[in-house]
Amino acid sequence: MENIVERLLSGDRRALARMVTLIENEVPAARRYLAELHRYAGKAHIVGVTGAPGAGKSTLVTHLVRELRRRDAKVGVIAIDPTSPFTGGAILGDRIRMMELSGDPKVFIRSMASRGNLGGLAASTRDVVRALDAAGYDPIIIETVGTGQAEVEVMRTAQTVLVTSAPGMGDDVQAIKAGILEIADIFAVTKADKPGADQTVAELAMLLSLDPMRRLHDKSQPYWRIPVLKTAAIKDQGITQVVDAIKEHHDYLVKSGMLAHRAQRQVRSEVQALILNSVVNALKARTTEDEWQKLVDDITTRERDPYSVASELQERIGLRQDP
Amino acid sequence: MENIVERLLSGDRRALARMVTLIENEVPAARRYLAELHRYAGKAHIVGVTGAPGAGKSTLVTHLVRELRRRDAKVGVIAIDPTSPFTGGAILGDRIRMMELSGDPKVFIRSMASRGNLGGLAASTRDVVRALDAAGYDPIIIETVGTGQAEVEVMRTAQTVLVTSAPGMGDDVQAIKAGILEIADIFAVTKADKPGADQTVAELAMLLSLDPMRRLHDKSQPYWRIPVLKTAAIKDQGITQVVDAIKEHHDYLVKSGMLAHRAQRQVRSEVQALILNSVVNALKARTTEDEWQKLVDDITTRERDPYSVASELQERIGLRQDP
Repeated sequence: MENIVERLLSGDRRALARMVTLIENEVPAARRYLAELHRYAGKAHIVGVTGAPGAGKSTLVTHLVRELRRRDAKVGVIAIDPTSPFTGGAILGDRIRMMELSGDPKVFIRSMASRGNLGGLAASTRDVVRALDAAGYDPIIIETVGTGQAEVEVMRTAQTVLVTSAPGMGDDVQAIKAGILEIADIFAVTKADKPGADQTVAELAMLLSLDPMRRLHDKSQPYWRIPVLKTAAIKDQGITQVVDAIKEHHDYLVKSGMLAHRAQRQVRSEVQALILNSVVNALKARTTEDEWQKLVDDITTRERDPYSVASELQERIGLRQDP
Repeated sequence: MENIVERLLSGDRRALARMVTLIENEVPAARRYLAELHRYAGKAHIVGVTGAPGAGKSTLVTHLVRELRRRDAKVGVIAIDPTSPFTGGAILGDRIRMMELSGDPKVFIRSMASRGNLGGLAASTRDVVRALDAAGYDPIIIETVGTGQAEVEVMRTAQTVLVTSAPGMGDDVQAIKAGILEIADIFAVTKADKPGADQTVAELAMLLSLDPMRRLHDKSQPYWRIPVLKTAAIKDQGITQVVDAIKEHHDYLVKSGMLAHRAQRQVRSEVQALILNSVVNALKARTTEDEWQKLVDDITTRERDPYSVASELQERIGLRQDP
C-alpha cells in the first residue's frame, strides 16, 4: 500500500506523477503518504517566479531550467495556471514551450489549475512541493501570475521570490508598489533587448531606494540587497546572473538564519490552514444544504443575526466556546 | 447598557462613531450591539470604489458624495487605508480633502486602517456597514486600493463595484485583466481631461467585449452591460452620470434577483468567517506560545508531520473529526 511512497523516494517518476494527481484530487490517502514523505523533505530550495501577465515568466523559467540543468541540478517546476478565460490562450502557448524540457528525466514539470479555491491551491502547492522535495528535486520552481489572491498565497511557500517585469508595462511598477515589493527577493527585467528596459530598471531601483528597511538595517547583520537584473531569454542573456542571484539569496537565507525563520513561519501557517480546512469540512458534513439555506434565509429576513447562527454552528461541530 | 444602540438608531452621530470604534477595537460587547442592529440594517445600497493607487479614487468619491447630497441622500463613506509606508503620504492628502465633507451632518466618513489581518478587515468593514446601514445611511461607499488581498476581500461586501482607471496608467488594464474585471460593475476613467483618456476607454471597452458571459447570456433575462464612463472630477464632469449608473445598477440588481442572491452569498461567507475567526481564537486560548513553538520545532526537525499536529490541535479545541 505504501509502495507509492517507496517508489517515489527511489526516484520513480510515475509514482511522483501519481502522487501529484492524488494531491490535486484531494484523495484522503494522499495525506497519509505525505505525512511519511515529510520526513524526507526539507532539502530543496523553493523558488517562486511571479509577475504580471505578459512579463515573460514562462520563457524565463524555461531558460532558468536549462541553465540549472547545465549545472547538473535536478529541477522541479510547478506552474500555476489561472483559470481566467482572459489569459487562457497565452498561458497555453507558454506551457507548450516549457513542455519541451520535460523529455529530460531530471526535470519534472507539472501545471496546476487555480480553481478559485483560495486555501485549497496554497495547500495543494505545499503538498506537491513536499512530494518533489522528498523525491530529490532541488531547486523547485513555482511559477504564478502574481496578481490574484490565491497566487500571492502560493508565493508564501517560496523561500526566494523572483519578480519579473517587462519594459513598457508601467503597470508592474504600480503593481509592485502596491504589494509585490514586500515579497520580492530578486527583480528580473525581461525582454531587455526591447526599448525601455533601462528605464524599467531605473524605476525599480528608485522604488527600492525608498524601502525604509534599507535605511534602518543594522550594519552588523547580513543584509540582502535586492538585485535588479536584465534578461533577454531568447538571446540567453542574463540567465546565468539570475541563477547566480538565486543561489546567492539561498546562501544569504542560510547565513542570516532567515531560512530557519521562514520555515517556522510556514509551518505555523500550514498547521493553521489544515485546521481551518477541517473546520470547513466538518461544517459541510454536519449541515445539510437545506439547513444552510434555512439559516441563511433567517439571517437575510432579519429573523436571526449572523453572530448567533455562527455560535450555533460552532456548537454543532463541537468547537469549544471561550467566554 | 443598550443605550448606545437606541441612540445610534435615533440618529446620534456620536453613538455611531463610538460603535465604529468598538468594532475597530474588537470589543466583545460590539457583537451584542451588532446582533441587535442587524434587524434594522439591510436597506442601504453598498457601493465599492476601487482602483490602483493614483487612479483618483478619493477625489472621485468626494465628488460622488457631493452629488449624492444634492439628491438629498444621507451618505456613509468607509475609506480603507493601506498601511504600506510607500503610499502613506498620498493617501493622507486625499483624506484631508475628503474630510471637508464631514462638516455635513448627513455625511458620515470613517477611515479604517488595514492592519494586514486579512479576515479581520473584511469582518470589521461588514460590521461598520451594518452599523451605518442601521443608522439610516444610504448609500454606503467603501473605498479601497484594489490590489491587496484584504482589499479585494473587502470589496465582496459591496453590491455595486466601481473600478477607477486613470489615463496613461497601462497598469490598470493589466490589473483588471488579472482579476478586477470579475468584480467590476461600472468603470470610471478618471482625469478624462488628460491625454489618453479615450484610449483607456477604448481599451476597457475592448476588454469587456471579450467577456464570454456577454456572448452567452440569455436574452430574456435582465443583463447588466458594464458602462465605461469618463469623469473629470475637478471640472465636475461625468459625476452625475456615475451616480446615475450606480442607481441603475441597483435597479438591475433588484429586478434580476441578483441583490437577493448576492445577499445570501454574503451571509454564508460572513457566518463561515465568524466561525473560522472563533477557531483561531480558540487555538490561541488553548495553546501557549511555548507549546506552539515546540510543535513547530518538531515539524521543522521532521520529528513530526504537520498533518498529525493539526489533528492533535483540532482535538484540543474540541473539533469533531470526521472519518
